[in-house]
Amino acid sequence: MEYTQTQYYQFANPPHTRILESGGNLGPITIAYETYGTLNQKKDNAILIAHAFTGDAHAAGYREGDKSPGWWDAMIGPGKGFDTDKYFIVVSNVLGSCAGSTGPSSINPETGRPYGTSFPLVTIGDMVNMQKELVTSHLGIKRLLSVAGGSMGGMQVLEWMVSYPDMIRSAIPISTTIRHSPQQIAFNEVARQSVMNDLNWNMGDYYGKEKPARGLSVARMVGHITYMSDISMQKKFGRKASRVVTGEDPFRANFDVEGYLQYKGDSFVNRFDANSFLYLTKAMDLYDASRGQPLHEMLRGFSYKVMVIAFRSDWLYPPYQQMEIVRSCKMAGMETTYCEIDSTYGHDAFLLETERQSHLIHHFLDSVYLEEDGEST
Amino acid sequence: MEYTQTQYYQFANPPHTRILESGGNLGPITIAYETYGTLNQKKDNAILIAHAFTGDAHAAGYREGDKSPGWWDAMIGPGKGFDTDKYFIVVSNVLGSCAGSTGPSSINPETGRPYGTSFPLVTIGDMVNMQKELVTSHLGIKRLLSVAGGSMGGMQVLEWMVSYPDMIRSAIPISTTIRHSPQQIAFNEVARQSVMNDLNWNMGDYYGKEKPARGLSVARMVGHITYMSDISMQKKFGRKASRVVTGEDPFRANFDVEGYLQYKGDSFVNRFDANSFLYLTKAMDLYDASRGQPLHEMLRGFSYKVMVIAFRSDWLYPPYQQMEIVRSCKMAGMETTYCEIDSTYGHDAFLLETERQSHLIHHFLDSVYLEEDGEST
Repeated sequence: MEYTQTQYYQFANPPHTRILESGGNLGPITIAYETYGTLNQKKDNAILIAHAFTGDAHAAGYREGDKSPGWWDAMIGPGKGFDTDKYFIVVSNVLGSCAGSTGPSSINPETGRPYGTSFPLVTIGDMVNMQKELVTSHLGIKRLLSVAGGSMGGMQVLEWMVSYPDMIRSAIPISTTIRHSPQQIAFNEVARQSVMNDLNWNMGDYYGKEKPARGLSVARMVGHITYMSDISMQKKFGRKASRVVTGEDPFRANFDVEGYLQYKGDSFVNRFDANSFLYLTKAMDLYDASRGQPLHEMLRGFSYKVMVIAFRSDWLYPPYQQMEIVRSCKMAGMETTYCEIDSTYGHDAFLLETERQSHLIHHFLDSVYLEEDGEST
Repeated sequence: MEYTQTQYYQFANPPHTRILESGGNLGPITIAYETYGTLNQKKDNAILIAHAFTGDAHAAGYREGDKSPGWWDAMIGPGKGFDTDKYFIVVSNVLGSCAGSTGPSSINPETGRPYGTSFPLVTIGDMVNMQKELVTSHLGIKRLLSVAGGSMGGMQVLEWMVSYPDMIRSAIPISTTIRHSPQQIAFNEVARQSVMNDLNWNMGDYYGKEKPARGLSVARMVGHITYMSDISMQKKFGRKASRVVTGEDPFRANFDVEGYLQYKGDSFVNRFDANSFLYLTKAMDLYDASRGQPLHEMLRGFSYKVMVIAFRSDWLYPPYQQMEIVRSCKMAGMETTYCEIDSTYGHDAFLLETERQSHLIHHFLDSVYLEEDGEST
């Protein structure tokens, strides 16, 4: 088996700092990324994949010692949806995260200590600007064959569509939205309050001390419910008795679903930084691809192809939100395909329904790749 | 204006303690209740209304000094759905709550201190047994014209239907379920974890000290999201900017919905006891009206009339759950009506859609009341 390797690109060229959309200054900046497949000589076979909220650059294959592969391994590889026999795949960890790219848990060179909440506000636009710099300055790619991603990854796809329309030949937004609804904001706000109410959060200054583990665990439990569906929980748990013994108090877990959520919450704490959790949820909530205007007006005149994927049981990012993207693209005169997959997995479907997605994406990418590329020839 | 008065019935007759369904012993027991209208001489015009999770006995009218009336005031009164010109309405606070009836914040006579988590586990069956004792032993009513309630109140209605079929002439379960789905359990479990993770919870021993206010506030915020609907939040908040200033940290409330939820969470802490929150959510999660059997077999041979009310946008207790009740009643050969109201209010609709419910209930009760009562004549 071939192991994948996470690489790190430091924005070394002057200026060493970058001005973010919030006006904040940040530097030096490191972006963690992985690549799969080979960049051809014309450099016209590159696809950027943007990860979701708590994802990372490790989308496919195994790293040494790993028991399970990257988060979209079933979609990326030879002959798969993102076919590495043909395409060069780039996946980078977003700015503000905690999996190799600069974020609130990184060391602030001015103080020698982690940024914590002195880290500037990060936006979806900032994440995409860093990806653009990685792809162009570092990898020397002028134009992407496609940009794809689900959930927060889909927001980054929309941002590419709006901000760098000449740099993409196609876009695949999945299970995402032009802007968060108040319900989506509300779930994130509850999760943030849970983290910040944990006394160990300490205004974000907990590095080297006890982490806000309890607050972050509850925050993740809330998220987990919204990632599944009523029916997928029914299938997975029903009202099966708990297999986990959690004490003899009257409020111990009686049902399997309770022990499962507690386990998921607790294990999340070991892999994700609480401050990154706050920064990234805020970035999603504040994002509006249309900047308060009708999106179709912003897209007018753009020539890339779009395929939007939705999942019927996703109630966190319901299909009507993806249909709104499709409507805007069509009104702007773009070639747009809408695929609604009849899955029961809820929002998690974009990670789990890999076979049906692979099929759709494989054909879509082929059709884009085989088409004459008017701009680069 | 006539003021309503909460009354208290202490289970004084020996035995002074009662054995609960869990096997736990409890006593003395006080039940807080209110009544509206007049009990007729035949005592055949009494209706019991069961309140929801954080409700209380004060369902209608004003208590001295109150700015707003009881929680179902629009439904109870002269000429209203529950017409006090004709009927005698009884509403009692459930066992385990904190609004006048005995619960974990009550004084344990053996220790002279609040029970806290030494309070025995309470079930929906226990709540109904206390109501039955209040209605029969104290008020001298042998048979109720009807029993009605929404959400956890609806579970109590189902329990009356199953356990005391000869004591009711009709039943009106609203926005409720035979048993909680794993998703409903999951939301309650997240809320419980939030309370118990607050260090001030202190294994339930916080009376006279600082309350687990932060944990309970987040728990209520989660609940609030599930009581509304995607569309009702869209209508009420959209993406309006926050009017509440909540500090200058990067995670302050940017949107109206965030400030609203925080306010709702914080104000809930002042009116509800954290331990009652834990006991009552657990009672709901553990309840199964059908005891693992097909419900229709348990209902066979019962002769009361049933009207089930559902609300289309209720995703916490979705209409398919109420349809399951209807199906069971019909399979048992009972006269059953199903009313699905096209409301956008989500689960809150059973408290807000008073006009349409009043209309349905008024006619239903009249039809039951005017019918010859084979049992009592």
